[in-house]
Amino acid sequence: MTRPTEMASRASDSEFAKRLAHVRASMSSRSLSALVVTDPANLFYLTGYNAWSFYTPQCLILPADGPPTLFARAMDAAGARHTCNLPDEQVVGYPETLVHRPDTHPFEWITQKARERGVLPSGPDALIATECDSHFFSARAYMALVQGVDGARVIDSAELVNWVRLVKSEHEIKQLRIAGQIAEVTMQAALESVWPGRRQCDVAGDIVAAQAKGTAEHGGDYPAIPPMMPTGAAAGTPHLTWSEHPFIDGEATTIELAGAFGRYHAPLARTIHLGDPPPRLVDTAKAVDEALAAGLDAIKPGAVVADVHAAVNDILNRQGLVKESRIGYSIGIGYPPDWGERTVSLRADDPTALQSGMAFHVILGIWMDGWGYELSEPIVVADDGVEHLTDLPHELTIRK
Amino acid sequence: MTRPTEMASRASDSEFAKRLAHVRASMSSRSLSALVVTDPANLFYLTGYNAWSFYTPQCLILPADGPPTLFARAMDAAGARHTCNLPDEQVVGYPETLVHRPDTHPFEWITQKARERGVLPSGPDALIATECDSHFFSARAYMALVQGVDGARVIDSAELVNWVRLVKSEHEIKQLRIAGQIAEVTMQAALESVWPGRRQCDVAGDIVAAQAKGTAEHGGDYPAIPPMMPTGAAAGTPHLTWSEHPFIDGEATTIELAGAFGRYHAPLARTIHLGDPPPRLVDTAKAVDEALAAGLDAIKPGAVVADVHAAVNDILNRQGLVKESRIGYSIGIGYPPDWGERTVSLRADDPTALQSGMAFHVILGIWMDGWGYELSEPIVVADDGVEHLTDLPHELTIRK
Repeated sequence: MTRPTEMASRASDSEFAKRLAHVRASMSSRSLSALVVTDPANLFYLTGYNAWSFYTPQCLILPADGPPTLFARAMDAAGARHTCNLPDEQVVGYPETLVHRPDTHPFEWITQKARERGVLPSGPDALIATECDSHFFSARAYMALVQGVDGARVIDSAELVNWVRLVKSEHEIKQLRIAGQIAEVTMQAALESVWPGRRQCDVAGDIVAAQAKGTAEHGGDYPAIPPMMPTGAAAGTPHLTWSEHPFIDGEATTIELAGAFGRYHAPLARTIHLGDPPPRLVDTAKAVDEALAAGLDAIKPGAVVADVHAAVNDILNRQGLVKESRIGYSIGIGYPPDWGERTVSLRADDPTALQSGMAFHVILGIWMDGWGYELSEPIVVADDGVEHLTDLPHELTIRK
Repeated sequence: MTRPTEMASRASDSEFAKRLAHVRASMSSRSLSALVVTDPANLFYLTGYNAWSFYTPQCLILPADGPPTLFARAMDAAGARHTCNLPDEQVVGYPETLVHRPDTHPFEWITQKARERGVLPSGPDALIATECDSHFFSARAYMALVQGVDGARVIDSAELVNWVRLVKSEHEIKQLRIAGQIAEVTMQAALESVWPGRRQCDVAGDIVAAQAKGTAEHGGDYPAIPPMMPTGAAAGTPHLTWSEHPFIDGEATTIELAGAFGRYHAPLARTIHLGDPPPRLVDTAKAVDEALAAGLDAIKPGAVVADVHAAVNDILNRQGLVKESRIGYSIGIGYPPDWGERTVSLRADDPTALQSGMAFHVILGIWMDGWGYELSEPIVVADDGVEHLTDLPHELTIRK
């Protein structure tokens, strides 16, 4: 089977087998008869399947016994044969006529077909878990599944596969390192691109080009989130993208972006100010730099997430700053709309003990009324502390 | 209220009022007590709210009587004040501590708070509709809503707001025209960028830069879908993006992309072949060009969608080509993962009668075993036929 569009970075067959074994062990500990996987990041993790096809229903059904089967729209099932590691007979396409119809849903067809093929158990003795908070598994899909399994119990998988993804393999860490290189060159391009009078959209163009072109050695993949670059008063809030207005002297811009390689993401945030920065921004930048250093210092195998959070907040609080939201989250494979894994959040009440091979985006975003500051590092927990995925200065960039 | 990050293209307050009135009329005809809107495109349509915040739960609750209220994560509620048209007291932020937790879901909080504020009716007499197939309203969110309304009936809105969006206003058509200009310059950049030996990722970089930079007059917005450009044997399937491998002489590439402006999308597809094309590709290109012309000819107010589909298929069938999937879909506002509106599909059994102001991406994708061809036009239905949003040659591009 040729796979002409894949990145040079595919996991080995034995790695896929290991991942599946971990998921099956977790299924077994919960007495599951089957798991229905819909999160595109989980599909990629378990099979290598990678296409922009998640806007129509698709899933991997993994029975406790028996081979996993991928269900997708007919035209995408053909594409799956270019990217996934399953034999052709384990990839099933549903008819085109089922797409976006008011009177039926592809999950009715999928559920019935999966039962016929013997990969989805049914009846009152069966216990099926599905990803109830996956972005691309809608309420309508859920109801079609529940109604089609003849009284089987359908429960929430509680991010079963996402939790298996938490500790990365050596192969995955290699992907993250390349993503980090791409994040680094992209952030450099971004910071060099912001000048008074330049349109925000033109800077965005420079950023997205750098993300795709990557390095001379490795091409970039599309990131799960476009560059976010709120500027001026809007920098007091995250998650705004860009406009066609020019950058203005005297204003700060927070830039959050990611380098992506083979669906692995290394996110990165920096702040740039045009002209002389106000003292509050300079003071905040210093405090945040110190707080980030303390947080990174606290990260090591065995440390508890809540302690990392405390190390950061001790320093911020001393400077009169308050950080209510989490200061980071687990990273790895990402698809829109999120490059986080939806498992560990770096916050006061998360009891997770860190392990070597976990990866995080440690991000300190200070969003005040009318202004803001962001600084971050993507890192991997190493045996002796932290491995940095990027290496750029931590200070506020000042252009004048 | 300043809105520093908006595009220059905001709908007027009277237009927002009209949209809301249309939605309320549709709600009234279904005897709804309230509508819970979660699709980001519908939120933008009804309030102007625009941020990359849909990876955490958010919604607009629209009671039959009473003001609409937007619920979002606390840090995004702050951002909403920069982009949405609601007064501050109608924007409510939920606590950061609820994000990505195993033991609770933001929709539990939202449902309770909405009831307290009197915007969400409850009890057995209430009839609440919600968007059961919206990408960012998960099964878990749905269950939290159902459990929180004290026995109220919760039904599927069946894309109520999406259907209201089907016929575009003059303001919306202006946005689509600008999106069309951006699609045109982007496709030109794409076709000029593909050469044997160039890495696919470098061409992707040129494309995404052109999408963001737009024209001298208007900056581009981020598109709902990244450029799709399967090449060689992979062109036999759609929805694959790119790799870091070089383009190869003797292979064809289908390119599908969109120009986006202020969230409005004009998608566009073309095919390029490097070197002398095989006769089957040349013949297919001719047949598809003729079929597209016939389809566009059939589009006018009063025509039925099924007839447009038949006009196209008559010509394709005469050439021995079969097109099982739809040949287009309604377009307008788009957010990842889709720039289609999930309402009208141009296919054999769609009974919709066309009206002036509807907009479509008419796309003929021929995906065969090991090769493919794509040609498309984004159009608006005008009083006297079709308004083209782009103006580029329809033939196969050949580079040698």
